[in-house]
Amino acid sequence: MKPIIMIAWLLIAINFGLISACHASDRKGLILTKEGITKIQASLGKTPLFDKTLQQLKTEVDAEIEQGIDTPIPRDFSGGYTHQRHKANFFLLQKAGVLFQILEDEKYANYVRDMFFQYEAMYKDLPLHPQTRSYARGKLFWQSLNDSNWLVYAAQAYDAIYDWLPAADRETLEDNLFKPFADHISIDSPQFFNRVHNHSTWGAAAVGMIGLVMQDEELIQRALYGLEEDGLAIGAKDDDGGFLKVEGQGAGFFANLNEPFSPDGYYTEGPYYQRYAMYPFLVFAQALNNARPDLDVLNYKNGVLLKAVDVLLNLSDADGDFFPINDGQKGMSYYNDAVVTAVNIAYFYGNKDPRLLSIAEKQGRVLLDDTGYAVAAGIRDGLAKKFTKGSENYSDGSDGDEGGLGLLRHGDEALTLLFKYTAQGLSHGHYDKLSFSLYGQGEEIMQDYGLARFVNIEQKGGGNYLPENKTWAKQTIAHNTLVQNRQSHFSGKYEIGSLHHSQLRFYDASNKAVQVISAEELNAYPGTKMQRTMAMIKDEAFEKAFVLDLFKADAQNNHQYDLPFYYFGQILKSNIDYQIPRTLKPLGDNNGYQHLYLEAEGIANSENTKFSWLDKGRFYTLTMATEQGDKVQLARIGANDPQFNLRKDPAIILSRKNAKQTLFASVIEPHGSYTPVSESAHNSNSNIAELLVLQDDDNYTAVSIKTVKGDMRYFVVANKNVNKAAKHQLKLNGQTYHWTGPFQYFYLN
Amino acid sequence: MKPIIMIAWLLIAINFGLISACHASDRKGLILTKEGITKIQASLGKTPLFDKTLQQLKTEVDAEIEQGIDTPIPRDFSGGYTHQRHKANFFLLQKAGVLFQILEDEKYANYVRDMFFQYEAMYKDLPLHPQTRSYARGKLFWQSLNDSNWLVYAAQAYDAIYDWLPAADRETLEDNLFKPFADHISIDSPQFFNRVHNHSTWGAAAVGMIGLVMQDEELIQRALYGLEEDGLAIGAKDDDGGFLKVEGQGAGFFANLNEPFSPDGYYTEGPYYQRYAMYPFLVFAQALNNARPDLDVLNYKNGVLLKAVDVLLNLSDADGDFFPINDGQKGMSYYNDAVVTAVNIAYFYGNKDPRLLSIAEKQGRVLLDDTGYAVAAGIRDGLAKKFTKGSENYSDGSDGDEGGLGLLRHGDEALTLLFKYTAQGLSHGHYDKLSFSLYGQGEEIMQDYGLARFVNIEQKGGGNYLPENKTWAKQTIAHNTLVQNRQSHFSGKYEIGSLHHSQLRFYDASNKAVQVISAEELNAYPGTKMQRTMAMIKDEAFEKAFVLDLFKADAQNNHQYDLPFYYFGQILKSNIDYQIPRTLKPLGDNNGYQHLYLEAEGIANSENTKFSWLDKGRFYTLTMATEQGDKVQLARIGANDPQFNLRKDPAIILSRKNAKQTLFASVIEPHGSYTPVSESAHNSNSNIAELLVLQDDDNYTAVSIKTVKGDMRYFVVANKNVNKAAKHQLKLNGQTYHWTGPFQYFYLN
Repeated sequence: MKPIIMIAWLLIAINFGLISACHASDRKGLILTKEGITKIQASLGKTPLFDKTLQQLKTEVDAEIEQGIDTPIPRDFSGGYTHQRHKANFFLLQKAGVLFQILEDEKYANYVRDMFFQYEAMYKDLPLHPQTRSYARGKLFWQSLNDSNWLVYAAQAYDAIYDWLPAADRETLEDNLFKPFADHISIDSPQFFNRVHNHSTWGAAAVGMIGLVMQDEELIQRALYGLEEDGLAIGAKDDDGGFLKVEGQGAGFFANLNEPFSPDGYYTEGPYYQRYAMYPFLVFAQALNNARPDLDVLNYKNGVLLKAVDVLLNLSDADGDFFPINDGQKGMSYYNDAVVTAVNIAYFYGNKDPRLLSIAEKQGRVLLDDTGYAVAAGIRDGLAKKFTKGSENYSDGSDGDEGGLGLLRHGDEALTLLFKYTAQGLSHGHYDKLSFSLYGQGEEIMQDYGLARFVNIEQKGGGNYLPENKTWAKQTIAHNTLVQNRQSHFSGKYEIGSLHHSQLRFYDASNKAVQVISAEELNAYPGTKMQRTMAMIKDEAFEKAFVLDLFKADAQNNHQYDLPFYYFGQILKSNIDYQIPRTLKPLGDNNGYQHLYLEAEGIANSENTKFSWLDKGRFYTLTMATEQGDKVQLARIGANDPQFNLRKDPAIILSRKNAKQTLFASVIEPHGSYTPVSESAHNSNSNIAELLVLQDDDNYTAVSIKTVKGDMRYFVVANKNVNKAAKHQLKLNGQTYHWTGPFQYFYLN
Repeated sequence: MKPIIMIAWLLIAINFGLISACHASDRKGLILTKEGITKIQASLGKTPLFDKTLQQLKTEVDAEIEQGIDTPIPRDFSGGYTHQRHKANFFLLQKAGVLFQILEDEKYANYVRDMFFQYEAMYKDLPLHPQTRSYARGKLFWQSLNDSNWLVYAAQAYDAIYDWLPAADRETLEDNLFKPFADHISIDSPQFFNRVHNHSTWGAAAVGMIGLVMQDEELIQRALYGLEEDGLAIGAKDDDGGFLKVEGQGAGFFANLNEPFSPDGYYTEGPYYQRYAMYPFLVFAQALNNARPDLDVLNYKNGVLLKAVDVLLNLSDADGDFFPINDGQKGMSYYNDAVVTAVNIAYFYGNKDPRLLSIAEKQGRVLLDDTGYAVAAGIRDGLAKKFTKGSENYSDGSDGDEGGLGLLRHGDEALTLLFKYTAQGLSHGHYDKLSFSLYGQGEEIMQDYGLARFVNIEQKGGGNYLPENKTWAKQTIAHNTLVQNRQSHFSGKYEIGSLHHSQLRFYDASNKAVQVISAEELNAYPGTKMQRTMAMIKDEAFEKAFVLDLFKADAQNNHQYDLPFYYFGQILKSNIDYQIPRTLKPLGDNNGYQHLYLEAEGIANSENTKFSWLDKGRFYTLTMATEQGDKVQLARIGANDPQFNLRKDPAIILSRKNAKQTLFASVIEPHGSYTPVSESAHNSNSNIAELLVLQDDDNYTAVSIKTVKGDMRYFVVANKNVNKAAKHQLKLNGQTYHWTGPFQYFYLN
């Protein structure tokens, strides 16, 4: 049946009472409210995006109903059949429930009931999942996390058929399936349930949502505030090395809202996990909002949950892909289902922000509930506005005082710099203080590696973290930041990293021509102060915006420093006098260096080292102010990788030995373009004739940039007083310069 | 001014005689005819694609006129300033000429005249270009090829203002610029002009077109038939190693039409060069058609020029990128200007093929002449039809008897196999007999490397061929074909390769479920017969179409064989018991092996070696029927590449030693998909349980394929009699099978 015809038929069917209505009761709906259902049914056929989504869901669920129900005995890791089947099942349960609520066709209720009873029959005697890798094994899945996923969706399906189901059936399901299921992921798994972690958010939502349907106050309280007794030792860790419990840690839904979210709405694990956690946070919040409006969860902590949706969308590149900091998998984007949920809920319960509608338009589907209906109606009524992403600075830490994440953007995402000066980011954090990544539209110019894992691809370690995640992806050398003595920050120790965070010095994106962020890190290498200032500059003397990077290290003793840049593409030209080794050897033995092959090594030019490359039709030049004795290494990821788990991406590493107080000044300069269709190269050479360090001491750092045509610029930054109103003066090349505030960009001619 | 307003104004201006009309004469237009101009002027504002193109051209040329004219003293290689400037100038000359003809605004005529006189002033005393690399140096450019480009465009501009220009000016330009220019690229450069090569096609068109405008019969004859005396020795070569003259070679336009084009319209250098040569071929043909209709050039050799346009379009992937066989640069596509010309001319002078209109729509622009107007009008009138690309087989050689190029396509380019059994392809040819490449929509699944050159990027060897083009890209091991004793085909010698070509055994794409091509090569390794049969099979027991590859070698003595597959992406799984070397070393010392690093080496499984990977969200498995003693090497391009000229792409190489008569049977199986947005892996495992060689002798080769579910298939191919009507029978596993024709695919259950 064509969608239009189908919808028309449904309208007639509902209006003429051809489909029997649900048994009425006074229960509030968990997600879909009674009022919502009435409104939606009355609007069928009139709201294109809603109708389209409904039709897609119906087609999908109808096909699955045809196939029959399969609830196999659990056996596999992620990516394996039993895992995939149970995962598909919980989505289907929820979808069939929604279809029953909107279309009132009993075949969907029957399907939900029948599947539940198959699970009920199996669950009673089900042992722990046979795969033993997890710190908290589930029963249907290898980890309680996935069991919690199941229950979050199953609770919605149970709610959908609750009134329709005979009381005796409800009792059977609750006694044999839902209650023991909720207990297993909470009481039986305190190490999973009582953490502050995205895992526990899923656990809380699962227990809380089934509790709301069952009207089981004890489960609801457990979900909101955690287990009173968990028997966990302070400092205990999970199988990925994350803490299970730290001093003073709360538990349950509110603790997980309090702690990982900063007041700005940034989630400490990073956007990949924020996306994952948002679904249970928001769907449970929506359910609580319906059932327990007195808790006012959506306004909790100044409405952090809805703020977080905005932050999440901003933490994406021009294609909507989330920045893969920490253990983030590349390619995850705001097209993910969880973000459909987030956008719809944020629109409905927030200020009806019309920018969210343009994201929903791109997503091309909505939730089949009150919120999704509102979004579809808003789009239909032409209210959508472009979601323009600008420069932003987000604090990290529950009180917003544990560093943060800064974004400098030029143009309509033509150039985006992500600068990371966060806290550790819980167990998914990487040891990469003051690191950055750079994007040109949706393309990576300087990458963050992301994680070493193929999520849900069973051939790669069962879809789990691969050994190289620890030995490579988490290590400092794998990131665009400074490494001292070939050691990772905090010696790569989670216990130490978790105690610290970097500090913002200043952030100023008020002048679109010169946007600057500066932060310092005092603890990554004890006794060494690291300070990085990054400026995104759009100067008329340059074709495109460029990035000026001033990385200052100040130590009590002499050390060796390595500063890598993970570019992409093909090398065009450099002024490095390098040698090519006869055979490729790893750069080192540990801390990630064992995974890098040395492809070339040479002496840096004593003034400026220049390195140009071409990637996806764009030219780039890295200009580094180098010193006598500096060494440049060209490296490639992939050494000591027996299972070929790593990507063979390139890096250029600047190395400096015996340095105490030192500055790494560089410019990353995108320029020109190349089109193979016309075979024409435009502006393929750097516009920088010279980058010089004019001064670098405790008070000031100053560099000069001279263009090929002879335009001269100075960039100065104060190293002590970064007060916005502070007045500074500095003599450079015989002339005195005055300015106010922490930095200035001087146009000399 | 907005396009619509501008066009409206022009209409008024022309109708009311506000712009003075051209001086009338009886000269025929070179490209734009008088009738064409009248028709076009009457249609301005009524043909969207034509109007849009005109407006774009006007905007571009107006901006350049503002900038003023620069004709710098020649100095640079391709990509350098003087090269780029003179190149931009000839395009501008032609465009300004067209604008003058259509819009009748004298500023364009003035611009053309002024630029011509600047060239005239310089050219008189201009020595040879200072760069000495070319075998035939130009004056404006480092090679006569580019000087010829200049003259082909300049001739059109000269024609546009011819009637408008005072006779004295014409005389000055002809005497000091055009005539000596034409003489330099022909009489002074016989080694360039008198070849059969795309270079000479440009030379002929340049001399011929300026000859037509000047009405200089001697130049026209020179262009059509070449120089009578060239003083070239038989066997002389150019700086890329290509022959300048071989026994019995003709010269001029007709010889270049005769020899490199097969009767099917395939151009022996491959589609990248066909695209390049098509412009001078077609634009000169169009001019001849206007001025010398008696020559009937468009019907020459059964209309091969227009046929060739169809071939060219078919030799592209789903994105329109040409297959980069021989020295082709990747990314060149039917969006190139030369193909706009080709499509427009083929539409106008051919059968008004509506499929060409859909290509023109994609191109988004048309020629501003009679042909382009016809295309724009056809599109406006809704005549466009999709250009569906199917399976095709094109002969090579001027008589169509020197091998060829076969295409097997499944679905709407869901899977495309390109199988190369051509002649050498002149100096741009690679030593890769019986090689293949494989595409899934616009993505490469198994690549042809293309060339080692960055066309027009001066940082890379002045934009010229890089040393690795000879040492890597041309060598056999760089291609998906069989290497004997680590030697390239024909010992990598052009003189030998040019004598031979492979032979088609059969091609049958009549059954879309089982399309097969088979060819043999007898001369690449003297004393060894190589025969490759490739089948594209879409079997209901498989999710997607797959490729069965049967490569048979039959030698008098024992040899070592290497069969590489150049895949892309990340390795997921294999059953090879491989070792990882501690350091990466090159695979060999010469013949391309010196450019491959050995990343892993292992013993092949004695029955089936399986190798799976993931690339751009698709899974693939290579299943090889391997034998005791077979070795598998994982390799990566990039060794001995001091300037980083090569791409670091991977390969898997199957090696067999001491083999006399042997068969390499493999299946390349695309399956499933992975989406990082939903993190779901679908069908990530191969469907092949077993690939067995049942028989392989002088008469027949037979293999069996067993699926994971136990479906059994046999594929048989006759090694002697490939007659379509021949009847065969063969006993396999105790049962006798009968079939007719060279091959059969048996469904056993």
